[in-house]
Amino acid sequence: MGKKKHKKIRKKGLPPGSLIYTGHHEDSPASVFSVWYTNEAYHARESYAPEWLQQQDGIQWVDVRGLTDTALVEKIGQDFQLHHLALEDVLNTQQRAKLEEYDNSLFFILHNLRLDKESFELQSEQIGVFLGENFVISFQEDSDDTLHFVRKRALEGQGRLRKRSCDYLFYAILDTIVDHYFGVLDELDTTIQELEAELHADGARANLKDRIYDLKRNNNRLRHFILPLRDATNRLYRSDCLLIQEVNRPYLRDLTDHVSQIFDSAEFAREQLSEIAGHYQAEIGNRLNDVMRLLTIISTIFIPLSFIAGVYGMNFEHMPELHWQNGYFIALGIMLAITLTMLTYFRRNKWL
Amino acid sequence: MGKKKHKKIRKKGLPPGSLIYTGHHEDSPASVFSVWYTNEAYHARESYAPEWLQQQDGIQWVDVRGLTDTALVEKIGQDFQLHHLALEDVLNTQQRAKLEEYDNSLFFILHNLRLDKESFELQSEQIGVFLGENFVISFQEDSDDTLHFVRKRALEGQGRLRKRSCDYLFYAILDTIVDHYFGVLDELDTTIQELEAELHADGARANLKDRIYDLKRNNNRLRHFILPLRDATNRLYRSDCLLIQEVNRPYLRDLTDHVSQIFDSAEFAREQLSEIAGHYQAEIGNRLNDVMRLLTIISTIFIPLSFIAGVYGMNFEHMPELHWQNGYFIALGIMLAITLTMLTYFRRNKWL
Amino acid sequence: MGKKKHKKIRKKGLPPGSLIYTGHHEDSPASVFSVWYTNEAYHARESYAPEWLQQQDGIQWVDVRGLTDTALVEKIGQDFQLHHLALEDVLNTQQRAKLEEYDNSLFFILHNLRLDKESFELQSEQIGVFLGENFVISFQEDSDDTLHFVRKRALEGQGRLRKRSCDYLFYAILDTIVDHYFGVLDELDTTIQELEAELHADGARANLKDRIYDLKRNNNRLRHFILPLRDATNRLYRSDCLLIQEVNRPYLRDLTDHVSQIFDSAEFAREQLSEIAGHYQAEIGNRLNDVMRLLTIISTIFIPLSFIAGVYGMNFEHMPELHWQNGYFIALGIMLAITLTMLTYFRRNKWL
Amino acid sequence: MGKKKHKKIRKKGLPPGSLIYTGHHEDSPASVFSVWYTNEAYHARESYAPEWLQQQDGIQWVDVRGLTDTALVEKIGQDFQLHHLALEDVLNTQQRAKLEEYDNSLFFILHNLRLDKESFELQSEQIGVFLGENFVISFQEDSDDTLHFVRKRALEGQGRLRKRSCDYLFYAILDTIVDHYFGVLDELDTTIQELEAELHADGARANLKDRIYDLKRNNNRLRHFILPLRDATNRLYRSDCLLIQEVNRPYLRDLTDHVSQIFDSAEFAREQLSEIAGHYQAEIGNRLNDVMRLLTIISTIFIPLSFIAGVYGMNFEHMPELHWQNGYFIALGIMLAITLTMLTYFRRNKWL
Amino acid sequence: MGKKKHKKIRKKGLPPGSLIYTGHHEDSPASVFSVWYTNEAYHARESYAPEWLQQQDGIQWVDVRGLTDTALVEKIGQDFQLHHLALEDVLNTQQRAKLEEYDNSLFFILHNLRLDKESFELQSEQIGVFLGENFVISFQEDSDDTLHFVRKRALEGQGRLRKRSCDYLFYAILDTIVDHYFGVLDELDTTIQELEAELHADGARANLKDRIYDLKRNNNRLRHFILPLRDATNRLYRSDCLLIQEVNRPYLRDLTDHVSQIFDSAEFAREQLSEIAGHYQAEIGNRLNDVMRLLTIISTIFIPLSFIAGVYGMNFEHMPELHWQNGYFIALGIMLAITLTMLTYFRRNKWL
Repeated sequence: MGKKKHKKIRKKGLPPGSLIYTGHHEDSPASVFSVWYTNEAYHARESYAPEWLQQQDGIQWVDVRGLTDTALVEKIGQDFQLHHLALEDVLNTQQRAKLEEYDNSLFFILHNLRLDKESFELQSEQIGVFLGENFVISFQEDSDDTLHFVRKRALEGQGRLRKRSCDYLFYAILDTIVDHYFGVLDELDTTIQELEAELHADGARANLKDRIYDLKRNNNRLRHFILPLRDATNRLYRSDCLLIQEVNRPYLRDLTDHVSQIFDSAEFAREQLSEIAGHYQAEIGNRLNDVMRLLTIISTIFIPLSFIAGVYGMNFEHMPELHWQNGYFIALGIMLAITLTMLTYFRRNKWL
Repeated sequence: MGKKKHKKIRKKGLPPGSLIYTGHHEDSPASVFSVWYTNEAYHARESYAPEWLQQQDGIQWVDVRGLTDTALVEKIGQDFQLHHLALEDVLNTQQRAKLEEYDNSLFFILHNLRLDKESFELQSEQIGVFLGENFVISFQEDSDDTLHFVRKRALEGQGRLRKRSCDYLFYAILDTIVDHYFGVLDELDTTIQELEAELHADGARANLKDRIYDLKRNNNRLRHFILPLRDATNRLYRSDCLLIQEVNRPYLRDLTDHVSQIFDSAEFAREQLSEIAGHYQAEIGNRLNDVMRLLTIISTIFIPLSFIAGVYGMNFEHMPELHWQNGYFIALGIMLAITLTMLTYFRRNKWL
Repeated sequence: MGKKKHKKIRKKGLPPGSLIYTGHHEDSPASVFSVWYTNEAYHARESYAPEWLQQQDGIQWVDVRGLTDTALVEKIGQDFQLHHLALEDVLNTQQRAKLEEYDNSLFFILHNLRLDKESFELQSEQIGVFLGENFVISFQEDSDDTLHFVRKRALEGQGRLRKRSCDYLFYAILDTIVDHYFGVLDELDTTIQELEAELHADGARANLKDRIYDLKRNNNRLRHFILPLRDATNRLYRSDCLLIQEVNRPYLRDLTDHVSQIFDSAEFAREQLSEIAGHYQAEIGNRLNDVMRLLTIISTIFIPLSFIAGVYGMNFEHMPELHWQNGYFIALGIMLAITLTMLTYFRRNKWL
Repeated sequence: MGKKKHKKIRKKGLPPGSLIYTGHHEDSPASVFSVWYTNEAYHARESYAPEWLQQQDGIQWVDVRGLTDTALVEKIGQDFQLHHLALEDVLNTQQRAKLEEYDNSLFFILHNLRLDKESFELQSEQIGVFLGENFVISFQEDSDDTLHFVRKRALEGQGRLRKRSCDYLFYAILDTIVDHYFGVLDELDTTIQELEAELHADGARANLKDRIYDLKRNNNRLRHFILPLRDATNRLYRSDCLLIQEVNRPYLRDLTDHVSQIFDSAEFAREQLSEIAGHYQAEIGNRLNDVMRLLTIISTIFIPLSFIAGVYGMNFEHMPELHWQNGYFIALGIMLAITLTMLTYFRRNKWL
Repeated sequence: MGKKKHKKIRKKGLPPGSLIYTGHHEDSPASVFSVWYTNEAYHARESYAPEWLQQQDGIQWVDVRGLTDTALVEKIGQDFQLHHLALEDVLNTQQRAKLEEYDNSLFFILHNLRLDKESFELQSEQIGVFLGENFVISFQEDSDDTLHFVRKRALEGQGRLRKRSCDYLFYAILDTIVDHYFGVLDELDTTIQELEAELHADGARANLKDRIYDLKRNNNRLRHFILPLRDATNRLYRSDCLLIQEVNRPYLRDLTDHVSQIFDSAEFAREQLSEIAGHYQAEIGNRLNDVMRLLTIISTIFIPLSFIAGVYGMNFEHMPELHWQNGYFIALGIMLAITLTMLTYFRRNKWL
């Protein structure tokens, strides 16, 4: 997953529906992985298999990884009669998560997220998934095999995947991607706890400021991914589209719950970060107070003393005190008295 | 109740519905307490009693404490025909509070909260409660006997519990757990009042900052428990599920009211804490002003005086003033005049 | 009206509906004032008059002041068939304002507010009012005669009170209590204006901070009383309960309007207080700037001068300048030149 | 328009519907201006003309200016059968903007606003307008001829006013008043732009603070006038009241649009003022930094130098350096070296 | 596109519907470009072609650029039977984006935005578009050929434009204008990233403050353009107006999506700018701390030392230490000891 800049590259002057890839994963070569299965059988192929379109029964899943081959995307779109605006959204990878209902299909866009551990940048990959009557097509921006757990479950006949209809596969793909968000939130949470610990240990270190800022920015970006996703999953759960069977509805509710949970965690992280930033500001203020208090104590004590010493350092011819036998010790005594008075004052005001 | 970290442990790659306990109470051994009662009779047993399933009348309540024995959870789930997604939620203890309606049962998730008095950390325990036609099943993460007041009321035939239907027991369990929130809010409130008092007494103490931060974080966590709970109880009150009898509806309204009240108090605490934090910041600013004012007064008075003393401490051969008879006293007089001028200036500007 | 702490005393382990008084007005002895009137007649008695229940026509109003006698509350509840959960709410005086519809009655909870002029604390008294087919029952926490204006109007046959049905009396009671809120807001507003004036006159006085804080806290508490009250009055206005006659609906709209107006004023006060707090912070910053500017000007001028004096106060044997005829005056001249340069610099930077 | 304090004067203990004027325009003598017109005819009179009530056709407009004559208000109310609660709202001039539908009339309350150019205070005048089947009655708190443009259009038969029904006149009055808000916003906007310019020119001047505060307060008050007005116009536009003809509906939509635009501008002003306040705070912080940097540079350079001078000003008998031939010049050299080192350090840290 | 000041020029006292241009593009001469096309034919003319109104088939598009010729606007309005309130909105160019449905036409107002690269000011041009049964009329405030891509596609018969009905042309115009928003957001985003980089490099530079302020203001203005646009496009998509064909609905959904995406980006920019401002404030606080720490270290070390030097610079006759053989060196030693103690203290407190 390459770093995705928050930048919009648009095709000025072209009519809507033109198929041009605008994302940041240009170095991902396009590959296709096709699966066809029924309750009994399972066939897989590492290429596009248009002949399976003729199959009367079973479910076909076409998993496209890498979007640089727009001709291929167009071909698949025509074979499965996907709407050209949806295909454009697949390639124009600055979409927000959304669900779109077409006459013969559902189209879901969401993002696979990852937190790069070194740069601490949130990286995203757009994934578009189509659900038809007997097919699921997933378009991933990246060549990573994000969905291999799903394929494995289909292959091994594990769980409910093989026994259920097409929409369960659709759900399984979405669920797998959404699960990655928990990982991102875990890392975010861990980092926040580390930050908190450091703040308690040594509050006003300058570099904390930058880390708080980075965390806030990434959390904001995360929230901007989750917010539309929450809407989209909610609408999917409440959709009355005939492609979704009643028996699978609880799974969609579960998916919606997960996204709500993710959103809630991100909100909590945001509140936490906001508290941390406030705490840091207070810490800086306290630190300044400590510094200034020390300066003031030292200055307030010594400046008057120095003044007295200065007075008796003057060279006037007629300064009677200078000739007193104990003049020096009286002067020292006065200085000591001033010092003690000051210290008492500071102690009373709890400065010491 | 062990400390619950805000951490998500997920079972990557497993199909949904897999039963694995993911919470932080692994040291709580699973125990079961079964109760069967009618208006006249009451039977209790400290183990699971599957044979009571055969009973035609009466109400059975299975109270599972500790979720480490997943086989037991699965067995109970099968006996009472609970949905496997609900069972997964019972074990996957990072859920938000929610109400789920299934064909033959209602499922409610909420959390038992406690404020640890020493570490001042909010501790939580997830509790899942099922309501069926003639049974209630409660799954507690922890082995504490949280619900013993309910059992006592059932045993003693006190109040309405024995005379009413199954949903009243369901309500009684939820109500008992929600009542604990009031205790948490009381402690929070007491702590806030203490904080306020200290702030008035000695506003800018550095450690107050940390306590404000801790309180805010815990209050935030509390609000994230209450918010979904409010939705869930509201939906329970408005639910048209046949398992809930019309005569018990006012009790559910009462429950909803309590949660609203709790939410309101938590909101008030949040606003209060925000004011306290602002007050603390202002206090720090004031304190800095006081410190700097003292420094400035002392410096502004003595620095010019010291300069005069310094001038007459110079060793030039030809300094006429040094030879004046009253040079020294004139110098002292000038110094006094400067001091008085300064003091007048400061008094006029209300610095003194 | 005693000071009501924001504290929840709950009856742990008791079944819901248990009648125990939990408020802070334990020193208010319970007294009852009963009124029975028709369009023509008016009877009043300073005790509970259960025999009036037999009356076929007319309206009975039972005004209970002080809730310490729970037996009395229970007796009245039984005589008028009030729901035991509502009675519990009457006694458990930490309720939010609310409207509850029962089969044969409406139940409204709201609070009488007063701003104590000395401690500047918001004091509250919970009042529960029941409306039945031919009765109104009001339960006041406090023994003050809050509703004497209403009784007076009933007695004197003034206005519409005697001519209208029971719900008009119900409305008159609520309206009288809500009117007190305007008084609280007036005092709040006056205090805010005083605060504003002081802020303009002498902005950074330390005690302003505490008063801003107190005002904000009280305003927040006030808002937490008004918010649910707004919901409750709104629901009362829109209620299709048969106990409310169509002809009295405009009065309920008027009541709703008043509460909206009160809420609006409280919101405005909140915004104002927030601005005042911001203004105060800016004032502190400015004040610090002024203080520091003075210190810096004095220091920047005199520290170099003192240094020059110090140099010529050194006791080196060979210091040629010391022996110059005009050495002293040249030194003074240099000092003057430095001073003038500095002053020019400060004036150019608008520091003076 | 006199200055309206945000103060609520209520008539304690009086039944609702009592007609007492509570506003701040007591010095506005009540005057009435009556107009009666059909498509062909136009009659005007500077007094109340109750005989026109008998007219079968045409539209009568009664414009009351000044509300001190409550008997007159009551008389008009009886003649046109206006609800006494509405009349009370006319006189009780602390209402929020609102629309009320009665059986035979619509009642709209809104405020005429003006920004006093000298005191920069927002001044308001409450105006209540009734729409009946063949009459419009406007009650203005103030004796200003706010609506003379409307009368002029009616007189001259200009535009659509004379050709349309009663509700168009009603609309024309509301539109004329709402238009004044644009003027207030213009002045607010101009002042904000001036403030912005001053902030850029000389950011931290103390008096800016007060002006920002004044602007914010007035903008807040403005928003509290507009918010309920927006609701009220919206409800007027969507109202299915038969007094409003379908053909005039686009005009009401236009009115609603204007109020939305006004609200939007006030919101924008609020955001702007908030940014300006933040900018001002940052400016103060920067200024303090500049001041302190200068102080620190001067102190850091001269304090060590003065110390060296002080050392060689000591009067010990045995101080070898004092007797060196070049002791003085070596000391000066060391001082110069220290100075240069410091300057280099400050330049490297970009303090100079 | 000239700079549009946020200023409202209203026509006081004129009846609604009066046609007067109130915008800031008075130097844009009015020009008209007419297009008439069917699936086969395409005719274009650089003037208004009223005779095409007689055409039975085909689509006419009148593109008016510059609104200074109000007579022309009125003529077109009459020819196409546009509502006079809509025409007024076309000329009164301080409208918010909106959709209005009239009996025979749809009317959409939106704004063409551009970010001036030098002054970094957001410039806007209001564009009003009418959709009728067989015509589209666009009124642009400015003489720029904003829509030439659309005309080019119509001319070349490219894409779907020529084959589809009138509403597709309407959509194509809106889409082209909305696309410009992406450009503005790109530049905004780039500038924010530059700002971020500078902040990390050299955080507390004073001029950053002004740039943050400018960005925030422009982002706020941008949001105030987008917010009503989002509502308007949403309503267009959901409108059941017969002028919009079902087959073109997905394009309107796509348009709505784009505006949502734009709004989301602007929101993200707002959050980012708010974080940056907070970061900048923290940086200023840190910087002040650094400055004060240096001052305090220097002062705390040297002030006591200078005091000691001052003491032994006094001229008392009887000061025994002065006569000690090693008095000078002992004094120096004490000074060194004090210095080391201080340095150790500072190091322990991590000040060095």
